[in-house]
Amino acid sequence: MTLAHQIAILAGDYIGPEIMASAEKVLAHTAKKFDFAYETTAYPFGGEAIDKCGDPLPQSTIDGAKQADAILLSAIGGPKWDAAPKRPEAGLLAIRQALGLYANIRPTKISESQVDDSPIKPEIVRGTDFVIARELTSGAYFGKPRELAEDHAIDTMYYSKDEVERIMVTGFDMAMQRKQHVTIVDKSNVLATSKFWRKTAERVSKRYPKVTVDYRYIDATTMAIMTQPTAFDVIITANLFGDILSDEAAQITGSIGTIPSMSAGAAGPNLYEPIHGSAPDIAGKGIADPIAMVKSVAMMMQYSFNQPDIAEAIEQACDQVIAAGITTPDLGGSATTDEVTDAIIARI
Amino acid sequence: MTLAHQIAILAGDYIGPEIMASAEKVLAHTAKKFDFAYETTAYPFGGEAIDKCGDPLPQSTIDGAKQADAILLSAIGGPKWDAAPKRPEAGLLAIRQALGLYANIRPTKISESQVDDSPIKPEIVRGTDFVIARELTSGAYFGKPRELAEDHAIDTMYYSKDEVERIMVTGFDMAMQRKQHVTIVDKSNVLATSKFWRKTAERVSKRYPKVTVDYRYIDATTMAIMTQPTAFDVIITANLFGDILSDEAAQITGSIGTIPSMSAGAAGPNLYEPIHGSAPDIAGKGIADPIAMVKSVAMMMQYSFNQPDIAEAIEQACDQVIAAGITTPDLGGSATTDEVTDAIIARI
Ligand SMILES: CC(C)[C@H](C(=O)O)[C@@H](O)C(=O)O
Ligand SMILES: CC(C)[C@H](C(=O)O)[C@@H](O)C(=O)O
Repeated sequence: MTLAHQIAILAGDYIGPEIMASAEKVLAHTAKKFDFAYETTAYPFGGEAIDKCGDPLPQSTIDGAKQADAILLSAIGGPKWDAAPKRPEAGLLAIRQALGLYANIRPTKISESQVDDSPIKPEIVRGTDFVIARELTSGAYFGKPRELAEDHAIDTMYYSKDEVERIMVTGFDMAMQRKQHVTIVDKSNVLATSKFWRKTAERVSKRYPKVTVDYRYIDATTMAIMTQPTAFDVIITANLFGDILSDEAAQITGSIGTIPSMSAGAAGPNLYEPIHGSAPDIAGKGIADPIAMVKSVAMMMQYSFNQPDIAEAIEQACDQVIAAGITTPDLGGSATTDEVTDAIIARI
Repeated sequence: MTLAHQIAILAGDYIGPEIMASAEKVLAHTAKKFDFAYETTAYPFGGEAIDKCGDPLPQSTIDGAKQADAILLSAIGGPKWDAAPKRPEAGLLAIRQALGLYANIRPTKISESQVDDSPIKPEIVRGTDFVIARELTSGAYFGKPRELAEDHAIDTMYYSKDEVERIMVTGFDMAMQRKQHVTIVDKSNVLATSKFWRKTAERVSKRYPKVTVDYRYIDATTMAIMTQPTAFDVIITANLFGDILSDEAAQITGSIGTIPSMSAGAAGPNLYEPIHGSAPDIAGKGIADPIAMVKSVAMMMQYSFNQPDIAEAIEQACDQVIAAGITTPDLGGSATTDEVTDAIIARI
């Protein structure tokens, strides 16, 4: 008998629980089919946790998440908590820190059936397939001092050698599994932290003689993502730049409702979540796109549980469902969340 | 007799002098035609100044620029000075500071003849017409402390109340002359400086009851620029965010060789320059696109010399030349820099 894999479920706000329900259905189906033993435990997080516990990240959720083998998170936040002293987003930053999730991996892959959904011309985006490795627990997001005074404000971008080195290693390792190409994105013609990133990249890259390395400025990269997205394989970049670039990259797929992500640390469980938000405007209507959440399950199978077959089966089912035009309104279809979910399950 | 307007010329590097020559020809022609009295004085700047004076911004250039009524700058920098102790870009940052040029204005306007040059689908970009008002002398670019040590690095994002207020005023004033709509772009769900920007915007906006105001996060804005560029009129944002966004915005025109910019301060001359770089790869071939540089002259006529007729005449001539297909290779044509320049002059 295998020990059941423990999965922490943070279902989140607005459409969060709706798409998490889809993910759990897909999980249950594949587990049965592939004989994968697991147990889930749900914890309050984000707005839900503010309502229940007065804190977007209660200690019990940290404790539970730490004990799990992997964490599935849906989308959090929304207008309901706009005036909360601690907003749901603060919980997101806090869980990244508490679990040491320093590497955020966001894939941008455009399958043939999605080419026409892109705002970019088909001949440019066809074949796009890269990932962004974003540093997630340091930089401008967490540096001290941070001040919000009457007459001025301060944020600090801080990076230590270890912090930069480990995300470099994550990115270069990924590149070795992919097309052996890395692009370091920074603003080293202006920022000291970026010069530091570049120096570190030069050092780490020596350990990967097979990997070719490009250096680009963040401003120029926003152009290149639009004009030559196929030029990228693995982009490695700082927290703030990664936040900006990964949204732009997601948008060129035209289908941000379909993009999963992984946040990983040195030890402890990884966290998997869609890159989209909680979409308060469509919550409760049963039309939220479950694909990104379901693909987050696939990523979890791949990276936390070393089950490439299950991951592949889920991925392919999702792509087939999109290709068959069984899609929610965000992708131009008229299917419900449940219909898309059932269609995925039918194809696994 | 009118006093001649004094224009400082910083011709820059690589294609810089080539397109500056075009600008000067157009200037000479329009001045004659519209009876506009001016004198130019050239000063070394950027790579050229490193070669001549060992400094990308020699004191004599600062002094000369300060005494001028307006400054025309072409593109600077290039591989030749990659290893220089002080690179050409350092001169750019230094002149912004020395002249107090805190407001950088970059227009993104897509004329009908340029719609097909965009990497974005025509139905999305058609009608795009907005400007970015980027803060240019503070924020992450200049904040102290800045450290580049062996084992860590630091940059500081600092903003004072005055610094934020004055760029807000610039942006809101522009909006009043345009479509009365302002979008504040920040990362106020994370950064203290962004929260500070948002509070300041809320305060300043009360003085402009006719202007509608949107608040957007920088990450989401990179998406909106691609999917609904016509939703913007004036974007007001911090130095680093403006750097990133304005390149993305430029790219959606598909013609970054055609976009001018203005940098303005509280007193003293404004500086006008193309937003593109010095294009070392095509320097000396006579095929650099002169449009952005020539349109910088138009902006100068408009904003420094209050000559809307001249500005309009130059602008229209440029657009007609593009529409007629008399373009350099960057816009898909086969004309030379001189041919485009002559075609513009013929239409003024
Ligand atoms: C919600 C916000 C704090 C978060 C971030 O900036 O990291 C989000 O944009 C993301 O990219 O996960
Ligand atoms: C060359 C560089 C220092 C500069 C900047 O970052 O401001 C450029 O990108 C710009 O936007 O004018």
